[in-house]
Amino acid sequence: MARNDEIARAVRDRLCCARTVAINLVSSPGAGKTTLLEHTLDALSSEISTAVIVGDVQTDNDARRLERHTSQLVNAVVTGGACHLDARQVEAALDTMALPDIQLLFIENVGNLVCPAGWDLGEAAKVVLFSVTEGEDKPAKYPHVFQRAQYAVFTKIDLLPYVPFDLEAAMQCARAVNPALVCIVTSALTGDGLSDWYAILRRLVREARPDAHLVGA
Amino acid sequence: MARNDEIARAVRDRLCCARTVAINLVSSPGAGKTTLLEHTLDALSSEISTAVIVGDVQTDNDARRLERHTSQLVNAVVTGGACHLDARQVEAALDTMALPDIQLLFIENVGNLVCPAGWDLGEAAKVVLFSVTEGEDKPAKYPHVFQRAQYAVFTKIDLLPYVPFDLEAAMQCARAVNPALVCIVTSALTGDGLSDWYAILRRLVREARPDAHLVGA
Repeated sequence: MARNDEIARAVRDRLCCARTVAINLVSSPGAGKTTLLEHTLDALSSEISTAVIVGDVQTDNDARRLERHTSQLVNAVVTGGACHLDARQVEAALDTMALPDIQLLFIENVGNLVCPAGWDLGEAAKVVLFSVTEGEDKPAKYPHVFQRAQYAVFTKIDLLPYVPFDLEAAMQCARAVNPALVCIVTSALTGDGLSDWYAILRRLVREARPDAHLVGA
Repeated sequence: MARNDEIARAVRDRLCCARTVAINLVSSPGAGKTTLLEHTLDALSSEISTAVIVGDVQTDNDARRLERHTSQLVNAVVTGGACHLDARQVEAALDTMALPDIQLLFIENVGNLVCPAGWDLGEAAKVVLFSVTEGEDKPAKYPHVFQRAQYAVFTKIDLLPYVPFDLEAAMQCARAVNPALVCIVTSALTGDGLSDWYAILRRLVREARPDAHLVGA
């Protein structure tokens, strides 16, 4: 892991030089990372140049789904049993990209709420997705990923009428383990809250490239 | 892991001698392991003597939930960051139990669809839970746990009207990675399918103790 941290630092320097904002998306399997990315690529691709690295234990199903939503390169990393992406895999993917042309790089990690927390990928921000079909106490039970994330995207809030999930209690639980965590409440089905998520991404890109012209700027 | 397999063999021998059936429950975080166990303890405790080992990265929240549903010992194992239970932890928990008095031992693993797959705990059967809020292609993307499980319990089917989930496609995907997998389709909310799950547990106990008197026998 010391070697991973070393490579992650090199990746971070490289992204910083290229002024590419990298976002590391982490969640349980099925919390909606790929669906959120599909919508995000549809919404932002005309104004922000994006690329994607997608990690999966097996299959390139998610990469193929995302390819339909962007003309940019989608890098599929099949970990073959490994439970998280590592910085070496991200570094290898960067070698295939014209980095200065990419403003925003999404890294969709393996669906796992435990192991990805400890592996720095050189990202600018970690985003943890939290589906309302899971329990409100997930942040207390899986604290590391919530402590290391800057943003928590609550997903599938269209299901709130049908599940015993107290959104306020879940947010309190998340903020108890990380008071600085920024919470965004979304539904990919209805579109609720997605504009808040896009606004955060636009801001991050604008901060990295103050001279860039964005629709949302 | 070789050392784990060695301890797991000793655990399996010990459980076999005591005629205790151990079930290792594995799933994504939030798929409903604890809720399924709450219902199962309520339904079976009067006819089958049960005990529980509950693994979590942090907190004993699940153990405390389950304690309300059984008079038997609930062993909380806090892994402190580790992403799965191991056989040594199960062995240590067995030391606290009067094993011949326990017919059915539930081991609720850490919520993780990747890492627990490779760690034998000495169980008689692995059960993977699969919530209909996740994607149908989870078995293809996380094949190891589905290959090593004997049973797949689909959970939260009361949400089927509200999620884009094709149950038949998901079952086909699961059976494509493991043709011998027995699928049980349930909702803890409505009770649908739970009797099928209980019937399987009764059968496993009956096979281990043909002389036992069970309500369902």
